[in-house]
Amino acid sequence: LPAVTPPDYPGFVRTIIEEGIKIVETAGNNPAKVMPFFKEAGVKVIHKCTSVRHSLKAESIGCDAVSVDGFECGGHPGEDDVPNFILLPRAAEELKIPFVASGGMADGRSLVAAMALGAEGMNMGTRFIATKDAPVHQNVKDALVAASELDTRLIMRPLRNTERVLNNAGVAKIIEKEKQLGAGVKFEDIINEVAGVYPKVMKDGDMEAGAWSCGMVAGLIHDVPTVKELIDRIMREADQIISKRLAGAVRA
Amino acid sequence: LPAVTPPDYPGFVRTIIEEGIKIVETAGNNPAKVMPFFKEAGVKVIHKCTSVRHSLKAESIGCDAVSVDGFECGGHPGEDDVPNFILLPRAAEELKIPFVASGGMADGRSLVAAMALGAEGMNMGTRFIATKDAPVHQNVKDALVAASELDTRLIMRPLRNTERVLNNAGVAKIIEKEKQLGAGVKFEDIINEVAGVYPKVMKDGDMEAGAWSCGMVAGLIHDVPTVKELIDRIMREADQIISKRLAGAVRA
Repeated sequence: LPAVTPPDYPGFVRTIIEEGIKIVETAGNNPAKVMPFFKEAGVKVIHKCTSVRHSLKAESIGCDAVSVDGFECGGHPGEDDVPNFILLPRAAEELKIPFVASGGMADGRSLVAAMALGAEGMNMGTRFIATKDAPVHQNVKDALVAASELDTRLIMRPLRNTERVLNNAGVAKIIEKEKQLGAGVKFEDIINEVAGVYPKVMKDGDMEAGAWSCGMVAGLIHDVPTVKELIDRIMREADQIISKRLAGAVRA
Repeated sequence: LPAVTPPDYPGFVRTIIEEGIKIVETAGNNPAKVMPFFKEAGVKVIHKCTSVRHSLKAESIGCDAVSVDGFECGGHPGEDDVPNFILLPRAAEELKIPFVASGGMADGRSLVAAMALGAEGMNMGTRFIATKDAPVHQNVKDALVAASELDTRLIMRPLRNTERVLNNAGVAKIIEKEKQLGAGVKFEDIINEVAGVYPKVMKDGDMEAGAWSCGMVAGLIHDVPTVKELIDRIMREADQIISKRLAGAVRA
């Protein structure tokens, strides 16, 4: 992914292996370059993909699994705009390796639906930010609880680097500039509302600073439990949906 | 919905009641005006909605059920762009009346996922067009089988009358005009590729004539069964997903 200051990827890979991490999620670029190091060290690689063709590519370069990420996701949904209701069963048709569902995942309903559509499980991003354990400012958690499913925006589409973010005053500025400048908008035009925003939002709790990734799933987030409470609840809900709601629908 | 020649709605209502139809699906405008006639005649009304707020409105005016229609749908998804993975559980949180899932529905996977997310069943549009029984030109059915999940386009967004259609030469012309004219595009600019297109496509099989509604679900359509074969297969698949794939995931 484009970055103002490119992260030290080789250092990340070295540290992951040295520290004995067993599973790594890669995203954005094709992870082919780092695959040999992870494979050699016995680290499993899950690559996040927003399309069937990228998922097949991940399978072909030796990834162990894919995290299939629909249009509803926070962060970068790609440019195809295919939601999980279509993308997950398409992945199930094409992939030989297992996959989990990303984007829009919040609760027991999401988990059972994702599994029905062919996923082996689900991957939550935004939902985990609204937990007691998440090391972010309380304002961020409050903003997720307050947000509806209509409160995210897509930015940077003209740059072919589309990102889904929570709407705020900084994001409104970005959208206004994109409207004014049309296809001619450049990264430099919106840099103040995009670069260096995370510390301001996540540490300082300045909720109007600019763009930070947030899924539509914010509309399904109504509380801030601990991670343990959240996971226990999801498993309990999923059990109930399967054993009560769905089991009753099976014909004799 | 806007129409070049407004249909005879009062005549439709009269005929529905006289012919003893038991369930009617309304869509587009608020059906408040026709509700008293249907209620009086004992006809159940399912209103199709692409948002939670419209679903609640339908509930408040006495609709018996809602057909909740996600961003992936063919035809008019509204302007909110909320896919079913978010929209269905949000509807489940808010509605007292039952609802079925529309948009992106193709098979047993769709049915079980929709039910897991809170729907009582599903409503198929595009999938039924690709059946032996559908009274449309074979070219249309072949086009649905050939299309991938990437082959639909959104048109008329600048007119706030967004429609998801299958891409073709006529649609490419519409998109080109919308790009050229931007927010200033008028219905008159694209009328040749939008008005009077259905007979050319559906009867004559002219697949490049212009815009006709088609869901992303085209990517999940690989054959042209009879309606009976399709429904039997969906029920068989749903049974298997529930009793094999999901039942095994329930904790003891």
